[in-house]
Amino acid sequence: MKVLVINTGSSSLKYQLIDMTNENVLAKGVCERIGLEQSFLKHSKIGENAVVIEKDLYNHRLAIKEVINALTDDKIGVIKDMSEISAVGHRVVHGGEKFYQSVIIDDEVKKAIEECSELAPLHNPSNIVGIEACKQIMPDVPMVAVFDTAFHQTMPRHAYIYALPYEIYEKYRLRRYGFHGTSHKYVSERAAQMLNRPIEELKIITCHLGNGASICAVKYGKSVETSMGFTPLQGLCMGTRSGTIDPAVISFLMEKEKMTVKDISDFLNKKSGVLGVSGVSSDFRDIQEAAENGNDRAQLALDIFCYRVKGFIGDYAAIMNGVDAVVFTAGIGENNDYVRSKILTDMDFFGIKIDEEKNKVRGEEMDISTPDAKVRTLVIPTNEELAIARETVRLIKNGN
Amino acid sequence: MKVLVINTGSSSLKYQLIDMTNENVLAKGVCERIGLEQSFLKHSKIGENAVVIEKDLYNHRLAIKEVINALTDDKIGVIKDMSEISAVGHRVVHGGEKFYQSVIIDDEVKKAIEECSELAPLHNPSNIVGIEACKQIMPDVPMVAVFDTAFHQTMPRHAYIYALPYEIYEKYRLRRYGFHGTSHKYVSERAAQMLNRPIEELKIITCHLGNGASICAVKYGKSVETSMGFTPLQGLCMGTRSGTIDPAVISFLMEKEKMTVKDISDFLNKKSGVLGVSGVSSDFRDIQEAAENGNDRAQLALDIFCYRVKGFIGDYAAIMNGVDAVVFTAGIGENNDYVRSKILTDMDFFGIKIDEEKNKVRGEEMDISTPDAKVRTLVIPTNEELAIARETVRLIKNGN
Repeated sequence: MKVLVINTGSSSLKYQLIDMTNENVLAKGVCERIGLEQSFLKHSKIGENAVVIEKDLYNHRLAIKEVINALTDDKIGVIKDMSEISAVGHRVVHGGEKFYQSVIIDDEVKKAIEECSELAPLHNPSNIVGIEACKQIMPDVPMVAVFDTAFHQTMPRHAYIYALPYEIYEKYRLRRYGFHGTSHKYVSERAAQMLNRPIEELKIITCHLGNGASICAVKYGKSVETSMGFTPLQGLCMGTRSGTIDPAVISFLMEKEKMTVKDISDFLNKKSGVLGVSGVSSDFRDIQEAAENGNDRAQLALDIFCYRVKGFIGDYAAIMNGVDAVVFTAGIGENNDYVRSKILTDMDFFGIKIDEEKNKVRGEEMDISTPDAKVRTLVIPTNEELAIARETVRLIKNGN
Repeated sequence: MKVLVINTGSSSLKYQLIDMTNENVLAKGVCERIGLEQSFLKHSKIGENAVVIEKDLYNHRLAIKEVINALTDDKIGVIKDMSEISAVGHRVVHGGEKFYQSVIIDDEVKKAIEECSELAPLHNPSNIVGIEACKQIMPDVPMVAVFDTAFHQTMPRHAYIYALPYEIYEKYRLRRYGFHGTSHKYVSERAAQMLNRPIEELKIITCHLGNGASICAVKYGKSVETSMGFTPLQGLCMGTRSGTIDPAVISFLMEKEKMTVKDISDFLNKKSGVLGVSGVSSDFRDIQEAAENGNDRAQLALDIFCYRVKGFIGDYAAIMNGVDAVVFTAGIGENNDYVRSKILTDMDFFGIKIDEEKNKVRGEEMDISTPDAKVRTLVIPTNEELAIARETVRLIKNGN
């Protein structure tokens, strides 16, 4: 059974074709600049070099068509024809309060996803366009929606309700949702497997540290807290996002800098974070290089990032009354030993101690704790596409 | 040596006269509705009933004059004449980055406090009016300014810098300052005395829980982190303040509810917190009563408040890599056993365990931990006026 995994952005479309008999990726790629000039498809048959196909991709339907062409191509393709695709799994950013798990897409589901667009105006509309494009090109192939928010729907009410007038929650469903749920779920389940213990008895803190970054408290297999909120802006300091600030900063800046609502949103989402602090880059490799060369603000950006992660680990250990494992994943979490070390140094009060030799690991599963550490610290590469494909298979087979 | 402690608001002026030979309060009171109709002074000679004196208090100078009249009155007074007042200690909210400790007020200091007004437009101007009024009435009495922010000036840079473009910090000194510093300092020092250990070897988490609420990590006697930020809006959920939210909530509400910058500021500062969630009151006694009578939102407000305090305790244990004592102070912290118990239940991973019998204490110093608890939990009534008077004496005597 081969599953096509689709992740649609406003002008992009990422895909992977996975053979679920052995969970091998057969091909993957991305359509860029859809609806813009100089659009192209970058396609890789696994084991071969990537091919860039320049093509006018006026819309997502044409992009999907081009993906199918590539997948079924004699040279760069991996299947004979479209009928080999048994199902499509779509990443959908926001499932609101409606979707607490993945779901087979029908008209009603599509409508409900559209209704969540108000909560994720930058993401859900693109996801729906992707779903519709697939429907047009492959009308008979079953499709599944896997939501970034679904895993966090188990958060208790005192965690997800803001201390705002309650009517605002009732009126707009304005509350904390959390994101990266597919990743937090995937790595917490892998952690239980690595520790060879049932997830139902484990308290795990998963740190998804990429350009977007969030932390999750997974108690007995369920998300009970996560650092993002109503949107992915809350919580940690990220590549270009401020994370949590004093809410009063916004009115101060709007008045002093004559910023509009749109200006402040761009400012906090695109110009802040480690980019804003360092003035160098949103990429940790650039920042580290600058810091090593004596750039004081670059060092400060690293310090702030790591410091905040450390605080959240303590926070989540408190709300779970303990922690058995801390997991690092995503671009920075998987690959950056400096960041991991900086976060976890001086955490022995919690029973967290890492072996700096083991910590040198990059992008591989590894227990990097010292043998005597009470808390296991694990590096686990995330695989959201595989998680989506697995969900897709499960739903197609079981119907729920 | 008798010290007059003054705490000026925009239309109010609180005072205490303290005999520093024995630290006894001789008299205290408050002028209300200064500059408004129906202004009055409420004065108490300690040990006697309060007296309300209705009087037109057109400005703070007249209010100070009336305070002096009351203090020197034959019946309700406690001193023969003004010359018995050796010094005046002023509470000043914001000392910016300039003031990391209390200071004798001269013209230069007054100017610097004025310059901090931009950071505390609701508070510092009133404080300055109070200082000027005292200067006019008692020109030869030395005065000291004690700042709410000063204790937190030891926070490290990675704690006080927001993940915003660094230029914004440079341009406006927009950073985290923290407040309630006089209280956090006072109770952390008392905690060390109660534990009979030098503060230089203690890691203490002080929870100042009143209508405004903040938590502080005091490492070896110095504040290294606190939950408020640029303004007193950040951090915990409070009586009427939201505390930390997703910054994106603000633009969402401004657009959907057509709120102005002023509207959103009032909304977050005056209509949110436990008042907004419960819809009942900002007073915990009312909320608890409602919760006991089955009001679900009142219970939710209590749950959110306590949950957030618990998280901060874990956070601060992480950044200090340990905690020796947790201190509760201010209106709720000193008096509310329900809240203390709810916060500290299921914290044994940290070595925190309280004795529910001892926890019944109200407004008295008490170690409420179980004998076997590794972390001591202390209730310590705060006394900001005494702390201000002590600072005043110290500076008048030593000159720094």
